[in-house]
Amino acid sequence: MNQVYNFSSGPAMLPIEVLRRAEQELCNWNGIGTSIMEISHRGKEFIAVAKEAENDLRDLLSVPENYKVLFCHGGARGQFAAIPMNLLGDNVKADYIDGGYWAACAVKEAQKYCAPNVINIKTEINGLKSVKPMREWSLSDDAAYVHYCPNETIDGIAIHEQPDFDDNKVIIADYSSSILSGPLDVSRYGMIYAGAQKNIGPAGLTLVIVREDLLGKARKETPSIFDYAVLAENDSMFNTPPTFAWYLSGLVFKWLKEQGGVQEMAKRNQAKAELLYSAIDNSDFYRNQVAPENRSLMNVPFQMADASLDSQFLAEADAQGLQALKGHRIAGGMRASIYNAMPIEGVQALVDFMADFERRNG
Amino acid sequence: MNQVYNFSSGPAMLPIEVLRRAEQELCNWNGIGTSIMEISHRGKEFIAVAKEAENDLRDLLSVPENYKVLFCHGGARGQFAAIPMNLLGDNVKADYIDGGYWAACAVKEAQKYCAPNVINIKTEINGLKSVKPMREWSLSDDAAYVHYCPNETIDGIAIHEQPDFDDNKVIIADYSSSILSGPLDVSRYGMIYAGAQKNIGPAGLTLVIVREDLLGKARKETPSIFDYAVLAENDSMFNTPPTFAWYLSGLVFKWLKEQGGVQEMAKRNQAKAELLYSAIDNSDFYRNQVAPENRSLMNVPFQMADASLDSQFLAEADAQGLQALKGHRIAGGMRASIYNAMPIEGVQALVDFMADFERRNG
Repeated sequence: MNQVYNFSSGPAMLPIEVLRRAEQELCNWNGIGTSIMEISHRGKEFIAVAKEAENDLRDLLSVPENYKVLFCHGGARGQFAAIPMNLLGDNVKADYIDGGYWAACAVKEAQKYCAPNVINIKTEINGLKSVKPMREWSLSDDAAYVHYCPNETIDGIAIHEQPDFDDNKVIIADYSSSILSGPLDVSRYGMIYAGAQKNIGPAGLTLVIVREDLLGKARKETPSIFDYAVLAENDSMFNTPPTFAWYLSGLVFKWLKEQGGVQEMAKRNQAKAELLYSAIDNSDFYRNQVAPENRSLMNVPFQMADASLDSQFLAEADAQGLQALKGHRIAGGMRASIYNAMPIEGVQALVDFMADFERRNG
Repeated sequence: MNQVYNFSSGPAMLPIEVLRRAEQELCNWNGIGTSIMEISHRGKEFIAVAKEAENDLRDLLSVPENYKVLFCHGGARGQFAAIPMNLLGDNVKADYIDGGYWAACAVKEAQKYCAPNVINIKTEINGLKSVKPMREWSLSDDAAYVHYCPNETIDGIAIHEQPDFDDNKVIIADYSSSILSGPLDVSRYGMIYAGAQKNIGPAGLTLVIVREDLLGKARKETPSIFDYAVLAENDSMFNTPPTFAWYLSGLVFKWLKEQGGVQEMAKRNQAKAELLYSAIDNSDFYRNQVAPENRSLMNVPFQMADASLDSQFLAEADAQGLQALKGHRIAGGMRASIYNAMPIEGVQALVDFMADFERRNG
């Protein structure tokens, strides 16, 4: 078997060093004779693991003191409900930036709790998909918050700008597919959140980083497990958290620090993306339909001029160990997700295969 | 190091055969070159794993065709909110049986959505803690449902009766700490549910088994990830499920079938509980304060006449590999949780240690 490279959009590739460590101590964690999965979240051993994971994450993203880090159940989809339930307060208005599939899903869920003011930022540049820059976003004066998604996994569109609005704007960003892929100024946000299964760890854990002054105004019907104030008061252990996912995410944070942190990740992710987009741009056989300034560094959708070759491409790639390249069902074509755990060797192998496939079929 | 026996109440001991299998294939599941954690929940490989787990669970509990099995986020605490949100419909009344700590927690959460009719069944028999039999429960005529908890993890109290009320009663039971510990007639319930981390698998997964005709009346504010109809329509993949926990739970279901299913588990659990309760009853040094007819087979709290010996007991037990015997913080004393994965050898080791400790300190 060739070396396998897994381009899945999520659940996604994890650093092999992390998996090997987890494998090694799966039945006997830290010499205690049981698995980390089998111990109480309220015992001193697990609390130390949990706290260390939080501290490492705080280091990696330089999370300011006045932000709480919460380890939640329910996925980013759960947050689509939790955000309006926690943060609307007495307001009935929130701005929702619509830049792609996941931003639109957040709008749909928010409609259960308020009348979201949807701001469509989708546009085109020279026939390529794009989104308007932040200075052109027509935000309301009286919205409880502004929600947007900086990296659209399916569309392959990214908003690379960091928000720079009035201080009184509460900016909320769904960083599920790009958290920890590069530096991020947390202080510019009221809250950022991310499902773990792309750039953090196993599915079933969701990270919320929220400014303390925003807590405590959850509406009465908010399920307690989604009430940020309840979670914060209980160090994310109001109920049993997904302990194994928390532990494994901690190993990923440790790995990221060893690699050089998010600055180093940004460099590597830039290099990987350039390699792949160049291969696409330098060919008439492949194409990517996103304007260069809005291309995602994490999720690279691409198509062939002749879509009837898709299934052959995917089967041959898979046979060479280049897995999970099929595009999302609503987008078609191919998609390579190249999160932190994907080494440049994986992207090089993909690019080599693409050139070879083109030679044989172009 | 002695053989370790882990008496944690949850997250709890898993069958060692299951852990070894997970360890063996952690980095390379089914020969595909990646971990089961790293693959898409929408790919054919994971869907096969998910379906097989559901089918094995259906076999184990003889789940009738007209019940949906849902694999959910959010823990049993999440269900405390999801149940009224999904099942009250236009009703404002639900009966909540209060037999212990967790039943009371469910009441508190339900108060966000309705005025629960709380029916206190706690009583005493000869000075021992007990609960009233089902025929003495004063149920309402017009409640949307009746909620109870058949095994109270902290109190060590169990309701061993199976419900046998009018057909029109919708009975809902929190089986978090006793599911799969013995046979169970699902058809007597509108819904049963269980957090995975005691008798199923890793924390972060919650099992819901719900009768189909109860679906589709969720209130508007129900987060989609908690809407049973949405989950049922999407085979529990409306959003990314906790895939690793689902997979590992499937291994536990397979293990249970290999062991002889829930009938065999009932025998073993009966034998383990008898061994431990006999040791307690035959000693003046230890005591259990629950009436014999309501003693839990899963969670056995016990105290010493002299509570000042507790910390010595726990430290010596731990040094002998008998772990996590400390009682819950609100109950004090000791507690041995002896779920399916605990072999009788573990209970024997505990009983032997208890006798030895009594000899030296009694």
